[in-house]
Amino acid sequence: MKDLKIGLLGAGTVGGGLIELLENRQQALQKRIGRNLRIVAVADRSYARKAFLQGKSFKVSDDASIVLENPEVDVVVELIGGLDPSRQWVLQALANGKHVVTANKALLANHGQEIFEEARKARKEIGLEAAVAGALPVIRNLRRVWIGSEIQEMFGILNGTCNFIITRMQKEDMPYEQALAIAQEKGFAEADPTFDVSGRDAAQKLAILSSLAFDHLVQETDIRVEGITELSPLDHAMAMRMGRVIRLLAVAKRKSDGYHLRVHPALIDANHLLSSVEEENNALFTNDPYSGPTMIVGRGAGAHPTASAVLGDIAAIARSEDGSPEVWLSGTEKLQCATDAWYRFYLRFRTLDRAGVLASISRVLADHDISIASMHQEEGSEPVDVVILTHDARESNLAHALELINKMDIIRAPTVALRLEEPGRD
Amino acid sequence: MKDLKIGLLGAGTVGGGLIELLENRQQALQKRIGRNLRIVAVADRSYARKAFLQGKSFKVSDDASIVLENPEVDVVVELIGGLDPSRQWVLQALANGKHVVTANKALLANHGQEIFEEARKARKEIGLEAAVAGALPVIRNLRRVWIGSEIQEMFGILNGTCNFIITRMQKEDMPYEQALAIAQEKGFAEADPTFDVSGRDAAQKLAILSSLAFDHLVQETDIRVEGITELSPLDHAMAMRMGRVIRLLAVAKRKSDGYHLRVHPALIDANHLLSSVEEENNALFTNDPYSGPTMIVGRGAGAHPTASAVLGDIAAIARSEDGSPEVWLSGTEKLQCATDAWYRFYLRFRTLDRAGVLASISRVLADHDISIASMHQEEGSEPVDVVILTHDARESNLAHALELINKMDIIRAPTVALRLEEPGRD
Repeated sequence: MKDLKIGLLGAGTVGGGLIELLENRQQALQKRIGRNLRIVAVADRSYARKAFLQGKSFKVSDDASIVLENPEVDVVVELIGGLDPSRQWVLQALANGKHVVTANKALLANHGQEIFEEARKARKEIGLEAAVAGALPVIRNLRRVWIGSEIQEMFGILNGTCNFIITRMQKEDMPYEQALAIAQEKGFAEADPTFDVSGRDAAQKLAILSSLAFDHLVQETDIRVEGITELSPLDHAMAMRMGRVIRLLAVAKRKSDGYHLRVHPALIDANHLLSSVEEENNALFTNDPYSGPTMIVGRGAGAHPTASAVLGDIAAIARSEDGSPEVWLSGTEKLQCATDAWYRFYLRFRTLDRAGVLASISRVLADHDISIASMHQEEGSEPVDVVILTHDARESNLAHALELINKMDIIRAPTVALRLEEPGRD
Repeated sequence: MKDLKIGLLGAGTVGGGLIELLENRQQALQKRIGRNLRIVAVADRSYARKAFLQGKSFKVSDDASIVLENPEVDVVVELIGGLDPSRQWVLQALANGKHVVTANKALLANHGQEIFEEARKARKEIGLEAAVAGALPVIRNLRRVWIGSEIQEMFGILNGTCNFIITRMQKEDMPYEQALAIAQEKGFAEADPTFDVSGRDAAQKLAILSSLAFDHLVQETDIRVEGITELSPLDHAMAMRMGRVIRLLAVAKRKSDGYHLRVHPALIDANHLLSSVEEENNALFTNDPYSGPTMIVGRGAGAHPTASAVLGDIAAIARSEDGSPEVWLSGTEKLQCATDAWYRFYLRFRTLDRAGVLASISRVLADHDISIASMHQEEGSEPVDVVILTHDARESNLAHALELINKMDIIRAPTVALRLEEPGRD
């Protein structure tokens, strides 16, 4: 059978990993797939400075047309990231009759509908496994394995940077800034970590997963996002006393009042499988009436894990090049999101240590139908932290209550509110 | 696009689950796959007594030819189990130009080579996801996602019955017989549980997984198997004191001296991901230099989870009906297994409480180059249990030593020897 010919846009860490993987595993791949996978062209802005691109059997250039307009190329692998010119180039590749494999979550979370529609018209495949959770086959599992599923809830740990920071804080009783610095040192966090720690990266990934799981169009803007920057070591210590741990969760639930899509740090049972997901690992926990609760955990980023996922998509195309392309967006209606939600909340108030402080806080909570399950205050110098665990409360009520409380003179910092999640219990 | 027509051999729990799943999820499946999946014929020995088979749009009969010789049928789903007549029927289906989906691990572990070869000649697909670990896509992940992988080690919890019994013993300090009785009550264990508790079921599954991971022919007989029937609550308690838990592991390792394939109860670190796999769940932990350490955990058996896996295979066939069939057995050479291994061992001796007992045991161990890391004996009435943890020792040496020790007058029951495994540390 003839070779499958690959054109690569972008030879950064993942692109480099892919080139290496294809070289090292050529024989095994040939045996396993039944045909040869061969890179024929690589476009990279700074190709001249990259030693690993020199003296190879493929053409290299800083001009993308070497890939996009190359009649030899069967599959275009897009690894440049961002929206522009990625969007244009992916559309151009499809228009030129090429399959596309991409690791670009931003592109799919924002222009997925347009791209899937173009692919459908061109009858070409879009491989997107690498866009979410690196080596973990979360996309494929949702779409190809649990094809009959009716996922009720998904809980993802989809950002390795945040999980690394959170588990370091938890295990070493370390402030956020210190854990972030270690993550940066180890190359797990960017110099400007905002995109990761704000939860946006996880939200883009959740948008992609939810659209597959729920057969509706989901965009990044449908998702409520809270990041991890306000967490303190005390939050971890208090969580532990409650038999819980904190994780940044990407949550998608199908409920009678609509879909609930969120990214937020949450307290989960310390014995839950998701609590065992530590350091830079990613995970996806799904609950479906047919296949039952399932979790996959492993490396969510990095050159080789991500290149592995790209390669899996290329191999799938090699097998079914002329088959019917995957239907990624089986519904084009927008998902109906619920407007409110009930949660148990963990609240941490930073207050002055005065008589009547607790009375003032609890009165406002009571006025908003929020009842207190437990309360805790450590001795210490002012300002002090007061931690309250609520019973089930309406999210909108809590927002109103905190607006009032945060305006009080006695409150010295915005109140931290974390939700309790119960994966698998709903 | 025309319907994909399914013929079903065997309508037991899994077959019934598949019929239900296809009915309930027909619309979603049509949207997701882009074509309709339709059962046209069902052969079942006792079809007349099964209410859920009556009044349907498909034909039913106790004669398999209604499926095998039916020109309408595109895919034959074999869910009768066992080797005979399954082997014959699967071969006949392929010869008649039909794709095959099977959940039959015994068939694949014993006649996989013949069946894959026939499928290759007929250019038809064999779907086998349901043969190992139910709803968990372990087969697909090995073969389609981590296609470039060079798996160094795999640790599977592949038998839900054993895992249920072991975690009950561990958590409730319960003897084996009592935990088994609960498993039987809950329907997790057969009246005759031998096939499960001896480790044979897990060994058949490991044979299939190893042949995919290592590209060699692996048969059940290549695997050393030890079951769980000799475990006592004391073993669990002692493991816990060592910061470990016991699991029945299916282990496959690629090492410089050959491949190591085993099924045995082993002590693993209590903080390892595999230790969080409890009750009737299954899991597979893989370690590969490209995708990194990864684990998937969930329901390994049951009507709906297994039917989900069957459905995933059918859907894959629906998409690539005329593509190149999967290359399941990419190597037909037999795997070279290592002849010996080094392990740390947990040993439990049941002895009389006499002076010199420990001296006699430790002398034999020393004579076989087995050095003792720690020793423990609880006070109690005779016979007493003496627990020894060894340093790294040669497996063959230990076997000789135990042969001698077990013949001593002071030893009142065969010595229990469990290995310490370190998944992800090699």
